[in-house]
Amino acid sequence: MAVTRRSVKLFYDVLSPYSYIAFEVLTKCNKLWPSMDLQLKPVLISGIMQKTGNSPPGMLPARAKYMGKDIYRVADYYGIEFKFPPDVFDIMMNKGSLKAQRLLTAAKIDASDHLEELSRQLFRRIWYKSEGITEDGSLKSACNSAGIPHDLSDKFIELTANDDIKEELKVTTAEALDHGVFGLPSFVVEHNGKPQMMFGSDRIFLLAHYLGESLPYPQAKL
Amino acid sequence: MAVTRRSVKLFYDVLSPYSYIAFEVLTKCNKLWPSMDLQLKPVLISGIMQKTGNSPPGMLPARAKYMGKDIYRVADYYGIEFKFPPDVFDIMMNKGSLKAQRLLTAAKIDASDHLEELSRQLFRRIWYKSEGITEDGSLKSACNSAGIPHDLSDKFIELTANDDIKEELKVTTAEALDHGVFGLPSFVVEHNGKPQMMFGSDRIFLLAHYLGESLPYPQAKL
Repeated sequence: MAVTRRSVKLFYDVLSPYSYIAFEVLTKCNKLWPSMDLQLKPVLISGIMQKTGNSPPGMLPARAKYMGKDIYRVADYYGIEFKFPPDVFDIMMNKGSLKAQRLLTAAKIDASDHLEELSRQLFRRIWYKSEGITEDGSLKSACNSAGIPHDLSDKFIELTANDDIKEELKVTTAEALDHGVFGLPSFVVEHNGKPQMMFGSDRIFLLAHYLGESLPYPQAKL
Repeated sequence: MAVTRRSVKLFYDVLSPYSYIAFEVLTKCNKLWPSMDLQLKPVLISGIMQKTGNSPPGMLPARAKYMGKDIYRVADYYGIEFKFPPDVFDIMMNKGSLKAQRLLTAAKIDASDHLEELSRQLFRRIWYKSEGITEDGSLKSACNSAGIPHDLSDKFIELTANDDIKEELKVTTAEALDHGVFGLPSFVVEHNGKPQMMFGSDRIFLLAHYLGESLPYPQAKL
């Protein structure tokens, strides 16, 4: 009997370190689970924070100190290369991700085959290689690392100034908010006849359960 | 070869619904995992929030709405009976858990065999049966449900006014803060030669990994 593939929408922003975890875990699961049809949905985290009145968890000093350890432990568990950039607060509070998320939106609309690998390369620039994602040169490098041909990456970068692309990013962010999203990563799957929105890389166990799949972790015993 | 039992400290307050989840999961695991020696550490959540400047996650409306669904999904996954009391904000913001946590502290010091079941009955009063935990009559009922003899439960309730018990609750709360705890549930296990503090019922997968154990979930496929 053929397995019915169920749509799983992953809302993410490359500025969010736990989005990087969820992205790597879910793209891996998507290759292994016949029941999942993963849809990558780049959104703007600053828009979500602003609309819901939420603030980054790292604003609380005791939590920031904890997260500095927690994400290394979690990344290690999942076998994901992770390293905090030295200027993490400047990146998250000032530099932001607007152009990068527009770039991903352009890839999503124009050549969606490249969306996953381009997302990965942008995540890795911030959360492993301590490289920027705001300058055109940085975006171009990410495209190169993702194996995107030069003419196409130039087009993507041009499209970050396009009104339709800007609007699409707003619409996708509004779609997340409509699902009740207040932080990232969040994902949505139909279960028990309605969309279930779940927040955080630590809710993937519930997704696996709803899909009747097993998580491919831990990869090896300690 | 005998397995070395490793101490796992669980810091919890019966006022915290996700502490109820972690408590039920870890007490179950403690029966199944030869490597774990679970130590129940009742602390005062209001003290932890005040010292760290943290605030309950449900203060953000969008997150409160989400948590109202999330905890049912999580409780269902773990097979834990859960129902929000109708006056949940009044319970968490006004009524508090001071006397209940002192009661648990008295049980911990005086007759620790009763600590687990008394904790369970207090959790269940709030988070399943919509019953109080602030009046002496409520505490007495919890003791009865936990199978504690009448003379001993009267003694526990008297001890909630005892200075040594009050001090012990403060000391244990300070111990949690010293470990970097900023919210509950949190637990601490030695790994890689140092104490690893982890926050949230959703970090139990890491604890299992560090102990080399498997989680006994999901209990049944959907």
